[in-house]
Amino acid sequence: MATALGVIVEALGGQLIGDAALSIERPAPLATAGPRDVAFVAQARYAAQIASTQAGALIVPPALQAQAAARGACIVTDDPYLYFARLTQWWRARHDPLPPARIHPAAVVDPTAVIGEGVDIAPFAVIEAGARIGNGARIGAHSVVAQGATVGEGSRLYPRVTLGAACHVGARCILHSGVVIGADGFGFAPHQGQWTKIEQLGAVRIGNDVEIGANTCVDRGALDDTVIEDGVKLDNLIQIGHNVRVGAHTAMAGCVGVAGSADIGAHCTIGGGAVVLGHLKLADGVHVSAASVVTRSILQPGHYTGMFPIDDNASWEKNAASLKQLNRLRERLKAVEQALAQAQPKPDDA
Amino acid sequence: MATALGVIVEALGGQLIGDAALSIERPAPLATAGPRDVAFVAQARYAAQIASTQAGALIVPPALQAQAAARGACIVTDDPYLYFARLTQWWRARHDPLPPARIHPAAVVDPTAVIGEGVDIAPFAVIEAGARIGNGARIGAHSVVAQGATVGEGSRLYPRVTLGAACHVGARCILHSGVVIGADGFGFAPHQGQWTKIEQLGAVRIGNDVEIGANTCVDRGALDDTVIEDGVKLDNLIQIGHNVRVGAHTAMAGCVGVAGSADIGAHCTIGGGAVVLGHLKLADGVHVSAASVVTRSILQPGHYTGMFPIDDNASWEKNAASLKQLNRLRERLKAVEQALAQAQPKPDDA
Amino acid sequence: MATALGVIVEALGGQLIGDAALSIERPAPLATAGPRDVAFVAQARYAAQIASTQAGALIVPPALQAQAAARGACIVTDDPYLYFARLTQWWRARHDPLPPARIHPAAVVDPTAVIGEGVDIAPFAVIEAGARIGNGARIGAHSVVAQGATVGEGSRLYPRVTLGAACHVGARCILHSGVVIGADGFGFAPHQGQWTKIEQLGAVRIGNDVEIGANTCVDRGALDDTVIEDGVKLDNLIQIGHNVRVGAHTAMAGCVGVAGSADIGAHCTIGGGAVVLGHLKLADGVHVSAASVVTRSILQPGHYTGMFPIDDNASWEKNAASLKQLNRLRERLKAVEQALAQAQPKPDDA
Repeated sequence: MATALGVIVEALGGQLIGDAALSIERPAPLATAGPRDVAFVAQARYAAQIASTQAGALIVPPALQAQAAARGACIVTDDPYLYFARLTQWWRARHDPLPPARIHPAAVVDPTAVIGEGVDIAPFAVIEAGARIGNGARIGAHSVVAQGATVGEGSRLYPRVTLGAACHVGARCILHSGVVIGADGFGFAPHQGQWTKIEQLGAVRIGNDVEIGANTCVDRGALDDTVIEDGVKLDNLIQIGHNVRVGAHTAMAGCVGVAGSADIGAHCTIGGGAVVLGHLKLADGVHVSAASVVTRSILQPGHYTGMFPIDDNASWEKNAASLKQLNRLRERLKAVEQALAQAQPKPDDA
Repeated sequence: MATALGVIVEALGGQLIGDAALSIERPAPLATAGPRDVAFVAQARYAAQIASTQAGALIVPPALQAQAAARGACIVTDDPYLYFARLTQWWRARHDPLPPARIHPAAVVDPTAVIGEGVDIAPFAVIEAGARIGNGARIGAHSVVAQGATVGEGSRLYPRVTLGAACHVGARCILHSGVVIGADGFGFAPHQGQWTKIEQLGAVRIGNDVEIGANTCVDRGALDDTVIEDGVKLDNLIQIGHNVRVGAHTAMAGCVGVAGSADIGAHCTIGGGAVVLGHLKLADGVHVSAASVVTRSILQPGHYTGMFPIDDNASWEKNAASLKQLNRLRERLKAVEQALAQAQPKPDDA
Repeated sequence: MATALGVIVEALGGQLIGDAALSIERPAPLATAGPRDVAFVAQARYAAQIASTQAGALIVPPALQAQAAARGACIVTDDPYLYFARLTQWWRARHDPLPPARIHPAAVVDPTAVIGEGVDIAPFAVIEAGARIGNGARIGAHSVVAQGATVGEGSRLYPRVTLGAACHVGARCILHSGVVIGADGFGFAPHQGQWTKIEQLGAVRIGNDVEIGANTCVDRGALDDTVIEDGVKLDNLIQIGHNVRVGAHTAMAGCVGVAGSADIGAHCTIGGGAVVLGHLKLADGVHVSAASVVTRSILQPGHYTGMFPIDDNASWEKNAASLKQLNRLRERLKAVEQALAQAQPKPDDA
């Protein structure tokens, strides 16, 4: 399904240099692009690859225009990475449009559910009593929208998403397969060596334009709601505990765990496998490196890390053993410093 | 659905001080409770909040009775947190009772399965040959109870739980959406650079009063069964490997990984994101901090931790680089100590 | 369903010593095996257990033949662990054969899907347009094979597996419950404080003889495909980001996270809970310990580790506090060394 380069520029803007009729087969990575592919170069530091790529056309910033034009067709734009993102969206809509919406006869939709216009409900989906599905939303196979839950306009639940009772998903959200919204938070009161369940009476409220990755879980609140604000992006296999707030436009990579009642600001990034302990506050604009454990509130924006450096195993073993002596080493060093201070002639001894 | 304060005390006990007719709209957190809400203060160290909360009524211990009564209605009880837990259970049962049980016509139930009294089976559930579902159990939509598996009385499988062949779940258990019980353990024999599968011939046995969080996995044993004892509470996205034993009333927070054949005692707590390596033994009453890696058996009860402290990234980089020199630093310190010992006059030199 | 020992040896080879008519009830662990069970002893270092086990028969290497034969029946074979793996496969096929294949009437199979011979499709499975299911494959309940996806001959999808559009699974693969293949990779371009989605136009290609554990996710590529090569074994709850390559016969334990575009070689092993950051290259034969974070490419085969050693909490607190001073300690040590060097008589002072 080839597309002329000029058609792309007509749709998405940018300055076209070269043959508008050039036939493009797909957007491709710079390294593997062929003569009928379009690739992007976001930054001047990748400029060296311009000479070697086989791409038929390049999306480049003004600073690389001359270099790119010297080798062939290009689209010049201020932010090539953003342009590329929009190209992928346009490409998918053009070449791989969603099938027409229909409510499959093998779905179970409660008669009291309110279903908007143009809603797609796939086979074996279950829409329970009092649920509301906004216009143009798509509910995948084996997804459950439980009692009183709501899905906003244009949102998409891939196959096998569970949206728990009374939980809310905003507009234009994407929930991938295996997502569980609104399972019970982990709350128990200890009593004579056993655990007494605290029923989780809150729900989950998810804003607009949120994307949630495969098998990620967001637990319902104990009393108040767990809140995911607008524009948040969560990768796969993330755990969000009860009563957490994730501020707008914060992004978390895969396998992050956020314990209960953590309050995470807006515009944060949390690296893969990081853990945020419970009841902590992270300011807006906090960036946590992968696999780091946030054990205290972080009230200043910035970049934070705590991660054991990897090494060959033999070196690690020695250093790890020494690490268990570290405080003792510190005391020994202090003793040495003091001994040395006493042994040395003092200034006024001269 | 307001409830008079006196009705709560009639049902759950405690000493009521104040107006029994006070209308309560919901149990609420102390910080956000309003004049028609009931909140709890578990410990004297939260006493300062008694003055500022807007809660209509408070659940307090005897030590805070005078202070609480001075500002309004209260319920006095020895363990306010436990009272609050019971209140949430009573509240849910009263205000949000489960719908009557029914076997939905869109479920597939094998004729050889044995279904107890008052069992609820939701649409698209699959109950295979020889499975047994105890009285009053509830099987959610898209859940599978495979061949020969058993679910005890009063247990609840939320939508989309897989209970593998021959696995057993006890009475009054709760399994949240996405739980997988009885997938194959990870067992392979190496052979000429490839892996030969070891069929996992064991099953999973889960005791009574166990709760298992969303998307958590418990693998079947290789030969004997994997065992989760009574009263265990597992949070979301936990991995329990084959042949593990988790002792009674142990609780694990989200994202924990327990490798095969680990033997974890009773009344333990394992913090979020912690890893327990295989074939280790943890005594009863071992408490492991979040994100710690248990690399050796722990035979004494106590609190154990291993976690890289988080820091601003620049400081972390310096310290992490030094960490790779730590054993060398230790040797250098020793050399300094020896040099200093030789340089100093010995006692008998005097 | 007892089986004569001689029947096992007839099927699987090895040298039988003792009574071929001995009735075996099951393969069992050495420690818990009874007089009608068969167990294995893989290595000479477990030889001490030969005297104490109650097992009716033992599978042993030649070096242990005399010792094993002195106490009862045994099968002598060069690689007892491999023999045991094959025995479990044979045992399952003999005692617990799969039911005959059928396409359940409650499955939804698109008329344009191509279904091979002897394919089993369980209730509520969904096979979309243009999908292809190879001969003898088995598709579990609630599994989805999306548009244009392919499943190779003899592969098995357990209940509740999602295989995304255009993704490919090779022959003889096993995908456990909750697996999600082909959810969108995590790709967004930042724009004015928000995130613009990069549509993920690639797919996932999985080779032959791959096994993927419960609730594990493999994301589709952004432009090119994510690739899992032949013979790879992934445990439960693993995250494989977009554009990753996992080389042939590499094995990963539970809860591993691999970030986007990582290129992992063949014959690697990655321990449970480890994290591999994005865009890194791991050579063939790299072994990463559990819970280690790979932050740089590793181009030499070998064993690598980075993991904070666990300790009692009080000791950990002291050492962790000192760790934040480590670079400062290093500088202090250097100062001490210099002071000492100046204080000491130089060789030519003598």
